[in-house]
Amino acid sequence: MAIMTPNEYLESLEKVKPKVYIHGELAEDLLKHPLLAPSLNSMKLTYAVSHRPEWQAKSTLLDGEPISLWTHPYFTKDDMMNKINLERMLGRMTGSCFQRCVGMDMISAMWSATYDVDQAKGTEYHKRFKEWLKQAQANDWAVAGAMSDVKGDRGKRPNQQQDPDMFVHVVDRNKDGIVVRGAKAHITGAALMHELFVVPTQTMRPAEEDYAVSFCVPNNAEGVIHILGRVPSDTRRLESELMDTGNIDYGAGAHETLIIFDDVFVPWERVFLCGETEHSLDAVWRFASYHRENGCKAGVFDTLVGATALAAEYNGLAQTGHIKDKLSDMLIQTEAIYACSIAAAALGREHPSGVCLSNPIYTSCMKNIGSKWVYEMVNNAHDICGGLLVTMPSEKDLRHPEVGKYVEKYLKGVAEVDTEDRMKIFRYIENLTMGPIQVEICVGAGPSQAERMVIRNVVPIEEYKELARKLAKIKND
Amino acid sequence: MAIMTPNEYLESLEKVKPKVYIHGELAEDLLKHPLLAPSLNSMKLTYAVSHRPEWQAKSTLLDGEPISLWTHPYFTKDDMMNKINLERMLGRMTGSCFQRCVGMDMISAMWSATYDVDQAKGTEYHKRFKEWLKQAQANDWAVAGAMSDVKGDRGKRPNQQQDPDMFVHVVDRNKDGIVVRGAKAHITGAALMHELFVVPTQTMRPAEEDYAVSFCVPNNAEGVIHILGRVPSDTRRLESELMDTGNIDYGAGAHETLIIFDDVFVPWERVFLCGETEHSLDAVWRFASYHRENGCKAGVFDTLVGATALAAEYNGLAQTGHIKDKLSDMLIQTEAIYACSIAAAALGREHPSGVCLSNPIYTSCMKNIGSKWVYEMVNNAHDICGGLLVTMPSEKDLRHPEVGKYVEKYLKGVAEVDTEDRMKIFRYIENLTMGPIQVEICVGAGPSQAERMVIRNVVPIEEYKELARKLAKIKND
Amino acid sequence: MAIMTPNEYLESLEKVKPKVYIHGELAEDLLKHPLLAPSLNSMKLTYAVSHRPEWQAKSTLLDGEPISLWTHPYFTKDDMMNKINLERMLGRMTGSCFQRCVGMDMISAMWSATYDVDQAKGTEYHKRFKEWLKQAQANDWAVAGAMSDVKGDRGKRPNQQQDPDMFVHVVDRNKDGIVVRGAKAHITGAALMHELFVVPTQTMRPAEEDYAVSFCVPNNAEGVIHILGRVPSDTRRLESELMDTGNIDYGAGAHETLIIFDDVFVPWERVFLCGETEHSLDAVWRFASYHRENGCKAGVFDTLVGATALAAEYNGLAQTGHIKDKLSDMLIQTEAIYACSIAAAALGREHPSGVCLSNPIYTSCMKNIGSKWVYEMVNNAHDICGGLLVTMPSEKDLRHPEVGKYVEKYLKGVAEVDTEDRMKIFRYIENLTMGPIQVEICVGAGPSQAERMVIRNVVPIEEYKELARKLAKIKND
Amino acid sequence: MAIMTPNEYLESLEKVKPKVYIHGELAEDLLKHPLLAPSLNSMKLTYAVSHRPEWQAKSTLLDGEPISLWTHPYFTKDDMMNKINLERMLGRMTGSCFQRCVGMDMISAMWSATYDVDQAKGTEYHKRFKEWLKQAQANDWAVAGAMSDVKGDRGKRPNQQQDPDMFVHVVDRNKDGIVVRGAKAHITGAALMHELFVVPTQTMRPAEEDYAVSFCVPNNAEGVIHILGRVPSDTRRLESELMDTGNIDYGAGAHETLIIFDDVFVPWERVFLCGETEHSLDAVWRFASYHRENGCKAGVFDTLVGATALAAEYNGLAQTGHIKDKLSDMLIQTEAIYACSIAAAALGREHPSGVCLSNPIYTSCMKNIGSKWVYEMVNNAHDICGGLLVTMPSEKDLRHPEVGKYVEKYLKGVAEVDTEDRMKIFRYIENLTMGPIQVEICVGAGPSQAERMVIRNVVPIEEYKELARKLAKIKND
Repeated sequence: MAIMTPNEYLESLEKVKPKVYIHGELAEDLLKHPLLAPSLNSMKLTYAVSHRPEWQAKSTLLDGEPISLWTHPYFTKDDMMNKINLERMLGRMTGSCFQRCVGMDMISAMWSATYDVDQAKGTEYHKRFKEWLKQAQANDWAVAGAMSDVKGDRGKRPNQQQDPDMFVHVVDRNKDGIVVRGAKAHITGAALMHELFVVPTQTMRPAEEDYAVSFCVPNNAEGVIHILGRVPSDTRRLESELMDTGNIDYGAGAHETLIIFDDVFVPWERVFLCGETEHSLDAVWRFASYHRENGCKAGVFDTLVGATALAAEYNGLAQTGHIKDKLSDMLIQTEAIYACSIAAAALGREHPSGVCLSNPIYTSCMKNIGSKWVYEMVNNAHDICGGLLVTMPSEKDLRHPEVGKYVEKYLKGVAEVDTEDRMKIFRYIENLTMGPIQVEICVGAGPSQAERMVIRNVVPIEEYKELARKLAKIKND
Repeated sequence: MAIMTPNEYLESLEKVKPKVYIHGELAEDLLKHPLLAPSLNSMKLTYAVSHRPEWQAKSTLLDGEPISLWTHPYFTKDDMMNKINLERMLGRMTGSCFQRCVGMDMISAMWSATYDVDQAKGTEYHKRFKEWLKQAQANDWAVAGAMSDVKGDRGKRPNQQQDPDMFVHVVDRNKDGIVVRGAKAHITGAALMHELFVVPTQTMRPAEEDYAVSFCVPNNAEGVIHILGRVPSDTRRLESELMDTGNIDYGAGAHETLIIFDDVFVPWERVFLCGETEHSLDAVWRFASYHRENGCKAGVFDTLVGATALAAEYNGLAQTGHIKDKLSDMLIQTEAIYACSIAAAALGREHPSGVCLSNPIYTSCMKNIGSKWVYEMVNNAHDICGGLLVTMPSEKDLRHPEVGKYVEKYLKGVAEVDTEDRMKIFRYIENLTMGPIQVEICVGAGPSQAERMVIRNVVPIEEYKELARKLAKIKND
Repeated sequence: MAIMTPNEYLESLEKVKPKVYIHGELAEDLLKHPLLAPSLNSMKLTYAVSHRPEWQAKSTLLDGEPISLWTHPYFTKDDMMNKINLERMLGRMTGSCFQRCVGMDMISAMWSATYDVDQAKGTEYHKRFKEWLKQAQANDWAVAGAMSDVKGDRGKRPNQQQDPDMFVHVVDRNKDGIVVRGAKAHITGAALMHELFVVPTQTMRPAEEDYAVSFCVPNNAEGVIHILGRVPSDTRRLESELMDTGNIDYGAGAHETLIIFDDVFVPWERVFLCGETEHSLDAVWRFASYHRENGCKAGVFDTLVGATALAAEYNGLAQTGHIKDKLSDMLIQTEAIYACSIAAAALGREHPSGVCLSNPIYTSCMKNIGSKWVYEMVNNAHDICGGLLVTMPSEKDLRHPEVGKYVEKYLKGVAEVDTEDRMKIFRYIENLTMGPIQVEICVGAGPSQAERMVIRNVVPIEEYKELARKLAKIKND
Repeated sequence: MAIMTPNEYLESLEKVKPKVYIHGELAEDLLKHPLLAPSLNSMKLTYAVSHRPEWQAKSTLLDGEPISLWTHPYFTKDDMMNKINLERMLGRMTGSCFQRCVGMDMISAMWSATYDVDQAKGTEYHKRFKEWLKQAQANDWAVAGAMSDVKGDRGKRPNQQQDPDMFVHVVDRNKDGIVVRGAKAHITGAALMHELFVVPTQTMRPAEEDYAVSFCVPNNAEGVIHILGRVPSDTRRLESELMDTGNIDYGAGAHETLIIFDDVFVPWERVFLCGETEHSLDAVWRFASYHRENGCKAGVFDTLVGATALAAEYNGLAQTGHIKDKLSDMLIQTEAIYACSIAAAALGREHPSGVCLSNPIYTSCMKNIGSKWVYEMVNNAHDICGGLLVTMPSEKDLRHPEVGKYVEKYLKGVAEVDTEDRMKIFRYIENLTMGPIQVEICVGAGPSQAERMVIRNVVPIEEYKELARKLAKIKND
C-alpha cells in the first residue's frame, strides 16, 4: 500500500476534496473537471511509474517497505541522478510538467533545513518533520510545495507592506498550534495533492519573525482555498473535440493555483519553522537549487525536437541543410542543460543531516542558460514549421461534411502522411511553444537575475583574482 | 466618397458577404461574429485614420480626388517612409496586426511587375492593372494580398506534386477569361476584404506556365471559400467577460484564412499574369521586400516595452538596475529594426514604371534580425513580469462574490495601483507574447533562411573580395 | 591650397614636429617611423580622396573656396549621409581606422555647443570657434579630437580624485589666456595631426568649473607630449619583411596616443568653454552621437566578409552550406549597423545654430549592437578559416631556401591559388580579428552601457506606457 | 625515474634535439630559445605537478611503479574526471595551453582503437601499442598527438588532391617497416616532445588505404622537420623587458608547429594502423571526443574572470551593477562548459578494451557552446576594461627617465593600486583576448559544424520523434 496505484490515488484524493475555484466556479467534482484532466493524467502517471522497481526508493523511514521516489529524500548523489532521470523520462512521456517534483524537492530541502535549525537552536523541528515524512511515505501522499508568496510591492520588505498579509505569516499562536494567514501563488499541481507544504519565500530579518514560518496542512484544512490560474488556450479543453489541444492527454503543462490561507490552524507537530528568521533562507536556497536542476525540461525539449523534426519531414524538408543545423542546435541546447543537471548531482555535497545537496553553481547555470535557450528553441521550432502553426483551421473544419474535404486536400504535406497527422504535430508544437511552458522555464525557481547573484556568491572569485595576480606578476594591490 | 468612413466600410462589406467557415460553421453574419470583432475593429481604424490629411495619398489615378494610402503605390521614397510611419502608428494603436499592409504592398509590387512583363512581352497587364486600381481607389476597396500557396511537399516543384492543385493554377481558359483552382494559406484579414489579389508564391519554370498566374477577384466570387485559422486563446473572445483576452478591442493579431479557389472564373481584364514564367518571381520578390520593411512590428514592440515597463512598475521594481537594462535592450532592438526599415526606404531605387522599390538589403536585415529578436524581447518581457503571466486567475474569479475579494487582495502589487489594472497589464502581455505574433514576425514574409539567400544575391560580395585582395596584396588567385 | 595634397600634408606636418614617445624613445623623424607608417598612409589617403569632387564640402567659411569634408560641419542630413558614405569607402580602402572622423565630428559638435552656451550665457565662444574653424579650413588642418580623460578612480567625481589632474583642467588664468594640465587617453591619430581639439569627457557639476574647459592648441604647443599606445603584433612592422603584418599599407587600425598637457598655455581666442559646467555635456553628447554612427565599421566589415569568403574559397569550401550561411549572417550584421547610421542621419534634426544633429536613438542602436556583433563576426570568420590563423609559419619560413619549399607545398589550398596568396589572406584576417579593432568597436565612443542609458533617456517611454494603458483599458494607476 | 622532474625532462629533451625552424632560422638551442620559453615553462610545470600524489595514475603497465597521468589511459570514469580537474588546475596555473593533453587523449583513444581493429581483422596493433606505451610510461615521455593533415583542397578526398601528399600516407613499405610522407599542421607543443604520435585526420575509404596509417616516431627521426607557427604579438617575447607579454611565464598559449614528414621510416612495431580504412575513423572520433571535454578552457576562463574582476576593481567600478552582471555571465558560461565535461565523464561508457569512452553528446555540447561563448566572454572582458587595452604605452615608456613619471601618474586607477599593477592586469587580458586562444577554443578539436553533425548522429532522434507521435496521437505517418 505504501505505493498507491493510480486508482488508489484517485480514491484517496476523493476523500480529501480540496476547495478549488475554477474560472469563477467552485468545482463540484474535481476529478471529473475537464480543465484538470491533463493534470490528473500526469499525476496518475507519476503513481503508475512508481511501481517500476527501477524507480523505487533505495531506503525508507518505514522499516524497509518499498516507497516511491516522490517522498524519498536524496541521500546520495545517485539518488539525485536518479530523480533527474525520472524527471526526464516523465517529461518525455507527458511533454509537460507532471507536478510532483516540487514536493519531492521540498522534502529533501526541509530534511536538512530542519536539522540545521535544531542544531543551532535546540528546537525539535527535524524530529517533527521526520514524523510527518513517515506518514507521507506510509500514505504515499502527493505533496504540493508552496513557497512563492504573492509579495505585493516587491520593492518593500514583508513587514513594510501596506497589507501585512502579502507574505504568509502567523497571526495567532497558542499551546496547540498556530494560525496562519496569507496566500501562496503559482503553486504547481496544488489542487490535486493530499498535502500542502509551506515554506518562506525569502530570507526574513529581525522584526519579521512571524513571517519565518514553515508547516504542513492537509489540502482540505479549514480556510484553505484554491483559485486556478489561466493558461493560453485553456478552454480548448472544453470543446467537444480535443485535437486542437495539441497534447490531448497531458495538456499545456500542469495547473497552478493561488492558494488562500484564510486563518488556517496548524498544530505544533506540523510546524517546522516558527520565528527563527536566520534560518528562513535555508529551505529556499536548497529547494531552489534542487529545483533548478530538474530533468523535466530536457525531457520536454526532447519531444519538441522530435516534433519539429517530424514537422520538417511532413513538410518535405527533412534533408535541408539549415533545418538539420537548427535541429542540431536544439539538441545541443537540450543536452547542455541536462549536462548541468548531471554536474550539479555529480558535484553535490553531503550535508551532516544525511542528505546530499546539489551543487548550486551548476543548478544556477542550468536555470540561467535554460531560461534563455527555451526562447531560442521556440524560435527554431517556429522557423522550421512556418506559418501554419498560427493559421491552421480547427478540428471541426477538418471533420466538417462540406469543407472537411478542402482541409484534407490542401493541408496535405508529403504524400505518405495523412493530413490529420500533419495537423496534429503542428498542434502539438503550438501547444508547447505558445503556452505556459516557456514562462515556467524562464521564471520558475527564480528569474535569471537570481542565478547571477547566486553564482557570484558561491564561486571562489577571490581565488580567481589571485590566479590572475600571480600570472600577471602583480605584487600587491 | 473615395475615402470611406468606418461605417461606409461596414455597409459596403455587408454587400460583399464573403463565404467564411469559422470553427466548423459557415458564418451567418460576419460583421457580428465575435471571433472577427478585433479584426473588424482594426479594419475600421484603418479607414478612420485615412481621413486625417497627413495620411492621405499625394497622388491618385482619379484626377486628384483624395484617396487613402492603402490603394496608393509608393511613387517616392517619402511615400515609403510615410507608409512605414503609418504602420508604426497603427501598430501602436492596435498592439496588433491591422491587416491592410498586405494589399498595399501588393499594389506597389504589381505596379512595377506588370510594367516589366509588358515591356518584355508586349502584353497589356499594366494597363489592365491600372484600370483595376482606378476602381480600387474610387471604391476605397480593402484588398487582401494572397501569395502563399499551400505547397504540399516542399521538396518538390509545383508540377511534380502528387496533387497538381497544391499551387494555384489555371485549369481552363477561354475568350472571356480563365478558371483557377488551388488554395492560398495564411491570408491576412481576408474574410473582411472586398477584393482578393492573387500572385504566385515563387518563381515558376518552363512547364509550369499554368502556375504563373496573377489575378483579382471580388471576395464573393463563385467558388471562393474561406476557412478561418485558429490562434492561441481564440475562444476567450466568446466568454461573457473579455478582460482575459488582454487586448479587448484589437485582439491577438489579425485573423488569417485558408482561401479555397474551387474553379473560380476570372475575366481577362482582371488577369495580370498568365503563363509568363520568367516574370513570376518579380511580384514575389518586390512584395516580399516591401513587406519585410513594415513598421507595424516596431509599433507593436513599442506597446510591449510600454506594457513591460508598467508591469515592472506595478510590481514595485521600476528602479531595479537589471530590469532597466532589459527594457533598454528591448528599446534598442525595436529601434534597430525600425532603422532598417528607414534605410530600406532611404536607399530604395526608382523603377522605370514610376514606383520606388525598397532596398532588399535592408528589408532582409530587418526581417532576419527581427525574426530572432522577437523571441529575445518575449524572453525579457517574461523575465521581468514573472510567473503570474501564466498562473493568474480569470476575470470571473475577480468578479466572484466570494473569492473576488481574495483575488483583489492578494494580486495587489504597489499600493497605488488597482489590482484590476495590474491584472490587465499582465493579460495584455500574455496576449502579445503567447499568441500568434511571434510566429507571424518569425516567418511572415519568408523564413530567416530566405533573407540569408537574398542578401548573398544582392550584396556585391565579389567587390568585397576584391577589396580584401588589394589590402592583402594578393596578385592573382 | 585649401585642400592639401598628400605631399603638402607631409610638408606641413614636418613643420609642426609634435613631440612623440614611441616605445620608450622620443621619435626623431615621425614621418619615417615604421610604427607610424600605416597611420601616415591612411592620413595621406584622406587627403587624396578629398580632391575628388564628390567628396568636397558643399559650403565653406572661406567665401566659396573648395574645402575638404574633414573641416566641414554637417549642415544638412545629406552632409551626414555623405560623411557616413565617405567613411564606409575609406573603411573599405584601408581595412582600418583612418583617424580623421574624430576631428570632423568634433567640429560639428562644437559648432552647436558653442552656439548654445553663447545663447544662454552671453559668451562669445561661437564666434571664436568660427574664427578658428576658418583657419582650419584655410589650412586644411588635420584635427585630433581629444575627449577621453584618464579618469583615475572611476567611482569618483573629477574633483574628488586623490590627484586633481586626472581630468584636464585649468590651473591658471590671466588676461591673455589659460594654463591647462592633465592628460587625454586613446586619442586617435593624434601624433600626425596639426591641431588638438580638447573637450570635457563628461558632464561637470558646480565646484568643477575648472574641469569644464574646451580649447584648441597646435600639436607642437609647449608642454604637449604624446606617448604612443601599443597594439597586438605592433612590432611585426619592424621586421625586414612585412607580409606578416597582414595589412601592409594600413596596418592594424590607427595609432592612438596618451597626450600629456603639462601646463600648456592657451590664448583666450582658442578657448571654447571655460567654467560653464551646465554646458559641459553638450559637446560630449553630440560628438558621441555623431561618432557612434560612423560608417567606417561597415567598410572594415566589408573587407572582413570579402577576406573570409576568399579564405573559404582558397580552402575549397566556397559552396558549403553552413559557410554560406555564416557569410550571410556577417553580411546582415554589417548592413544592419549601416542601416542604423543611415536612419540616424535621415531622422536627424536641425539645430538653431545651423548644423544638423544625428538622431541619438539610432546612433545608440548602431553602437550598442555593433559592439556585440563584432565578436560574432570574428567568431564566424575564425570558424570558417580554421586553425591556420594562429599556427601559420612566418614569411621568413616561406622565403627560406631550405624549408620554403615545404611551406609552399603544404600550405597550398585549392590548386588554382598560390600558397603565398592563401597565406596573405589568413594574415589579413589575423590582423583584423586579433588586433585592436574589436576593442575599438566595442568601447570606442562609449561602452555598451552608455547607449542603454541614452536610449532610456531619449525614447518617449512614458508614451509607450500610455499606449499599453489604452490597449489594456487601464483607467488609472 | 618513471616520473621525471622538470630538470630531468630538460636533460632528456636535450638528447632528442628535434629539428625546429623558428621564424626562418633553424633553432640551435631549443631549450634556450625565448620564443619557446613559455611553452617550456608549461611543460616543466606538467612534470612538476605529476609528483603530487593526487595527480598520479591509479594503475600502470609497469608492475605498479608510479607513473604520471600523462601516459595513463582513462580506465574509469574517475580517471576522466581526474584528467578534467588536472587540466582545469593547470589552466588556472598557466592561463594558457599547457600542451600535454593532446598526447594523453591520443593514448586513450588508441588503446581502444587498436583493440577494435585487432578484434575485427586479427592484426596485432594493440599488442604493439601496449609495448610502445610501456616504454612511454617507463621513460615518462612527452607525446605530441599529430592528427590534423594540411588537407589541401578541402572539397576533395585525400586521393583526389592534385598533390597526393596533402594527407600523410605510406609511400613505401618493406619487411622492416613503412616510409611515410606528408605534413601535420597545428601540432601543439610538438617542438618540445619526445615522441610524435600520428593518426589519420578523418575517415578513409577504399582506394585510400595508404592514407589509413597511424604510427609513432621519436621526435628526432630522420626526415622530421618542425616549422613554428606565429601567434599575435609573439615577438614581444624578444624585447628586453617582458611586462608587455602580459603572461611572462606562460605566454599566449602553447606553441604549435607544422610538422613535415619527409619520407620518414617507421619500423613495424611502431605502426598501429596501416590500410584498414574502415577503422581509420575510430581514433579520430574518440580522440576528438576526449579532447573536446578538456578542462583547460574552464581553467583559463577562471583567470580571465579573475583578471577582469581585478580590472574593474582597479578602475574603481567593482560595485557597478551591470559589470557585476557581466562577470556573473562569464562565470555561468565557464561553469556550464565545465558541467558538460563532467557530464561527458559521468555518462561515459566502458569499452571492451578496458578504457572508458567519454560521452560524445556532452563533449559535442561543450565544444560547440564553448566555441561561441569564448567570444562573448572576450566581449564582456573588453567592455568592462575599456580602451586602455589597446592604447596603453609600453613598459619602456613606464621605465623611461623622462616620460615614465607621466605614465605612472596618468594611468593610475584607484588610489590603492600601483599603476604598474594596473598596467599588468590590462596586459594580461590583452594577451588572453587578442591572442591565439580564442581561435584554439573555436576550432581546436573541430569546427562548430563538426559537433552539429556528431550530435545528430549520436542522439536517438528517432525515439524523440516517436515520443512526439505518441503525445500528438499520430497513428502512422
